[in-house]
Amino acid sequence: MKRIKLTVAYDGTDYCGWQIQPNGITVEEVLNRNLSELTGEEITVTGASRTDSGVHAQGNVAVFDSDTTIPPERIAYAVNRKLPEDIVVIRSEEVPGDWHPRYQETEKTYEYHILNREMPDPVRRRDTYFVSYPLDLEAMRRAAAYLKGEHDFKSFCNAHTDVQDTVRTIYDLDIIRSGDLVTVRIRGNGFLYNMVRIIVGTLVRVGRGFYSPGQVKEILEAKERTSAGVTAPPQGLVLVKIDYPGTGT
Amino acid sequence: MKRIKLTVAYDGTDYCGWQIQPNGITVEEVLNRNLSELTGEEITVTGASRTDSGVHAQGNVAVFDSDTTIPPERIAYAVNRKLPEDIVVIRSEEVPGDWHPRYQETEKTYEYHILNREMPDPVRRRDTYFVSYPLDLEAMRRAAAYLKGEHDFKSFCNAHTDVQDTVRTIYDLDIIRSGDLVTVRIRGNGFLYNMVRIIVGTLVRVGRGFYSPGQVKEILEAKERTSAGVTAPPQGLVLVKIDYPGTGT
Repeated sequence: MKRIKLTVAYDGTDYCGWQIQPNGITVEEVLNRNLSELTGEEITVTGASRTDSGVHAQGNVAVFDSDTTIPPERIAYAVNRKLPEDIVVIRSEEVPGDWHPRYQETEKTYEYHILNREMPDPVRRRDTYFVSYPLDLEAMRRAAAYLKGEHDFKSFCNAHTDVQDTVRTIYDLDIIRSGDLVTVRIRGNGFLYNMVRIIVGTLVRVGRGFYSPGQVKEILEAKERTSAGVTAPPQGLVLVKIDYPGTGT
Repeated sequence: MKRIKLTVAYDGTDYCGWQIQPNGITVEEVLNRNLSELTGEEITVTGASRTDSGVHAQGNVAVFDSDTTIPPERIAYAVNRKLPEDIVVIRSEEVPGDWHPRYQETEKTYEYHILNREMPDPVRRRDTYFVSYPLDLEAMRRAAAYLKGEHDFKSFCNAHTDVQDTVRTIYDLDIIRSGDLVTVRIRGNGFLYNMVRIIVGTLVRVGRGFYSPGQVKEILEAKERTSAGVTAPPQGLVLVKIDYPGTGT
């Protein structure tokens, strides 16, 4: 029996998120079905991050246990031949039998893509949030500075969650413009439910001039979801990668 | 009666190209239907470029004549509220009644996007050509240099066409890498049927080492379609813009 770690990319547009649920097709169930067909075993993957409906990934992580004779690093190529083209296993490798994608120290990197110009771009409608108003990126960067470091992010957590500990650490929060594309890149030790999308929704309100950068400090200190901006839409968000600094994987 | 010029962007994935045809839905017919509904007239647009099935546009051009009282520059916003989200009119403006999008001097700019890395990216599958082999960009640039200027591009024209004059001028042909995305940007006074895609298919063969850069000069001189490389797939191609240097529009 081997434990196999998968690095998984997907276009989340046509999925009801990662986690199996009764009302729609999910990335997890498509992986389970295709890995089961490939190995002839009943495979159940354990994922690192339960991305929401419409959210994309370049590097989500999952593990499963199998007796397959396919060499671990070939599993990616073998299952990609079966998977639909909106899910790709980027990498497969053997990890120790007790390696778990969630119960250890992690660093997650997300990007949120905003298309900031006067008219929408139909080719980018599935992976960007279209904002036609001018954005003051300097104001957004000053606001973002208040969010870096260790804080209680209760104001930036969807209220429909039962998580108790809302303290997280943001290591980097950069806002980069390239032509009409504005990328918010954020790296932290973990993120609450909808946290990146609420941060982006709030920063966009700063960029439009509705909040001053200093108000973001007040929002953070309020520890109340209703004080922050709206949740930015899912299609702009991509889970770029998950690092495991403790294990070097 | 006014003549209105439209600048049109679309995601070509789900269309059988620009031009109306019996076997599938096209961008032209969707524009005609929605402009007719908007104005209450029977509108027939005349397009500048008949892009192929699956090819995208940031700035194709079309004109139509109308008695509508909607101000010319507002037509874009009004019709965008009706159009499906994969077609967007970027701009609308009045032009002289004899202004024609094809029968005058034009400069067209295309980009072709190649995703060049080991594994596909599901989010970019609709607007890039995935090439997993390493590409020698310097060799591709040396080959591209032979194609710049005025030449008979018969070798780079789909044989299923009855066009007589196959002489065209390429003003610029640049190959730029940004991370794992390779962009071939090409500007010319006109392009033959499939010409950009055959050029890209040939340059990719140079980049993989199957042709030397000098062979591209021989292919050009052969004036025979079978001498060039395969036609690169449509989804990597986007018509960026059409300029009309004679009229300043």
